[in-house]
Amino acid sequence: MRTTVGIIGAGPAGLLLARLLHNAGIDAVVLESRDRSYVERRQRAGILEQGTVDVLRAAGAGERMDREGLRHDGIELRFDRRRHRVDFPGLTGGRSVTVYAQTEVCKDLIALQLQGGGPLLFEAEALAVEDADTDAPRIRFRHEGREDVLECAYVVGCDGFWGVARKAVPAGLAHVFERTYPFGWLGILADVPPSHDELVYARHDRGFALLSMRSPAVSRLYLQVPDGTDAGTWSDEEIWDELERRFETDDDWRLERGPITQKSVTPMRSYVHEPMRHGRLFLAGDAAHIVPPTGAKGLNLAVGDVVTFARALTHRQETGSPELLDAYSATCLRRVWQAERFSYDMTALLHTAPGATAFEGRLQLARLDRIASSRAAETDLAEAYTGFPFG
Amino acid sequence: MRTTVGIIGAGPAGLLLARLLHNAGIDAVVLESRDRSYVERRQRAGILEQGTVDVLRAAGAGERMDREGLRHDGIELRFDRRRHRVDFPGLTGGRSVTVYAQTEVCKDLIALQLQGGGPLLFEAEALAVEDADTDAPRIRFRHEGREDVLECAYVVGCDGFWGVARKAVPAGLAHVFERTYPFGWLGILADVPPSHDELVYARHDRGFALLSMRSPAVSRLYLQVPDGTDAGTWSDEEIWDELERRFETDDDWRLERGPITQKSVTPMRSYVHEPMRHGRLFLAGDAAHIVPPTGAKGLNLAVGDVVTFARALTHRQETGSPELLDAYSATCLRRVWQAERFSYDMTALLHTAPGATAFEGRLQLARLDRIASSRAAETDLAEAYTGFPFG
Repeated sequence: MRTTVGIIGAGPAGLLLARLLHNAGIDAVVLESRDRSYVERRQRAGILEQGTVDVLRAAGAGERMDREGLRHDGIELRFDRRRHRVDFPGLTGGRSVTVYAQTEVCKDLIALQLQGGGPLLFEAEALAVEDADTDAPRIRFRHEGREDVLECAYVVGCDGFWGVARKAVPAGLAHVFERTYPFGWLGILADVPPSHDELVYARHDRGFALLSMRSPAVSRLYLQVPDGTDAGTWSDEEIWDELERRFETDDDWRLERGPITQKSVTPMRSYVHEPMRHGRLFLAGDAAHIVPPTGAKGLNLAVGDVVTFARALTHRQETGSPELLDAYSATCLRRVWQAERFSYDMTALLHTAPGATAFEGRLQLARLDRIASSRAAETDLAEAYTGFPFG
Repeated sequence: MRTTVGIIGAGPAGLLLARLLHNAGIDAVVLESRDRSYVERRQRAGILEQGTVDVLRAAGAGERMDREGLRHDGIELRFDRRRHRVDFPGLTGGRSVTVYAQTEVCKDLIALQLQGGGPLLFEAEALAVEDADTDAPRIRFRHEGREDVLECAYVVGCDGFWGVARKAVPAGLAHVFERTYPFGWLGILADVPPSHDELVYARHDRGFALLSMRSPAVSRLYLQVPDGTDAGTWSDEEIWDELERRFETDDDWRLERGPITQKSVTPMRSYVHEPMRHGRLFLAGDAAHIVPPTGAKGLNLAVGDVVTFARALTHRQETGSPELLDAYSATCLRRVWQAERFSYDMTALLHTAPGATAFEGRLQLARLDRIASSRAAETDLAEAYTGFPFG
């Protein structure tokens, strides 16, 4: 098999890249190790930045998102029993975010790809990227029981943190930046209308909690739990009780309960692999960087990466200049580090670290008080939350 | 002896408070354990916020400050060999800071006090505050070889971190918030014109450095050093060499060297004592809170405290209402915690902690890059640096 761009991974990064290249008249093949049903069901992010929404729409993948996605013009910060709303459009000159689950983005992009795009192979497991530093990189993969090779002009690794693409960068050329956290998120899906119409980020002495939603009928809620927690050790009632405590307010706000349909624990990690390019291999999304979910940045970073790659390759095809491709890593990394910073800061702002001192607790409250009382500090947050510019 | 307000400590807080009370027609006595020459010589802060300048001027203590103080409309952040100027008036609607050493503020206030103010006793060592929770608190002190008692209506402890005033708050009623740092500042005074006309805050992999000044002819420079460093172990040449490395830029900026006339190491600490009031004893300045010097907030916080106290007592005398006195601690603490937060964040932004990871270094650079590229983030810093509002 032969193609211009071999894409490893049919998550949102790989699928959107395939779409962008298709629209630019560049052929691509997507290899995905899992089956379609798995890809369409794995629960991940659910907040699309303004720029992500714009890109999906421009790529022709925005129809259902525009119909079913929930536009959110703010978030609520909850601390010390207080409630403070951050007004995104008012602070950023009109920007907002959209709640539309990653699973739905994937479904939409898969449908488009299968209708009129290039090949998208499920259960095609990439084994290795070879000759990345030559003009003819190759992806070795296994599909339908046998090994095959995809000959490419470019390879883009959109295969996530555990994927093979990153392994093709020689260790001596790579720098890894990493941080783990002593806590994770216990996340639930519940069949109950969300108790607030915007996301609620709660800082509490007992730990962080987040109220989110998948639709007007389905709540998505999270609790900070110690790293390594088994979701099964929390009964439904314990989860609701703990959520209720962490979302406490001075007014008559109430958390509505409902049947919990899914329960799982997400570990938290910060990770950056530099550079994001080696020869004709380009890394995008989780293959190159991980953020803790507190800033809702993971999916949006992946989108920025593939937009940058698609622009750079189009520029190369149109002008012959490799300038933008050469700048790919540096261009992406500047945005990546801003998202790493923001995700780290939001995490530190809202989570209670084991062994945290009373001084650190007061610093968190002082930071939240600052955001609630300074337009500049609040704007800084609103700009970051609604998204850093691509490239 | 008897007075309305017994003030312990003739640092800037105690001296300014005496002046403010004098101007309001309220009598006060200041007790200072050291002699005049010591008080007028101890090197401390040198950056006055806009609000501090305004207060000193309004109190009639601004004449020499207005003549000799250096108005600064910005600072420079230096990182990754880059230089970024933060323009205070442009970001804050006209606010600036003034470089005028604490020693000079003290000299001016002492001169005023001795000319026409109430008693100011040097070498009068406060031993204890008694009966703070009654209507007749007393300060026991030793002066000219014998013990005496100052009978007061109110006592204000402006006697610093090591003073006796705070000890009069029963341990069971106090909450202490504290943080120490594994580094300090090696500070020098040098007879050489400052190499830049505004302060330069440098973040470097080797550690923080600060270029400041006392006058157009005297430089004040600092180097981050490990906690417990003996200033004598650094030769003058080693200090200049290290400063030169940490201030490195990509342009032709040069650090001018000159004779070093003073060398000392300042430890760094964050500390807050709550509440700042017990009965008729009020704590102000370092007696109640310490910040690391990175944000230049210590002196300015002390000024805010005594302004708040003077206003509250004047209100009490004029209206009979204790409302503002009762609110003293809460009023001051909100500003104190903002300064604690800012000082901590500036410290974390610029210092290299022992054992810091490469990830943390990149976070610092990403934060600095954010300040340099987002008007909101830069405004947040400029507002905090030029000062939070009093009360």
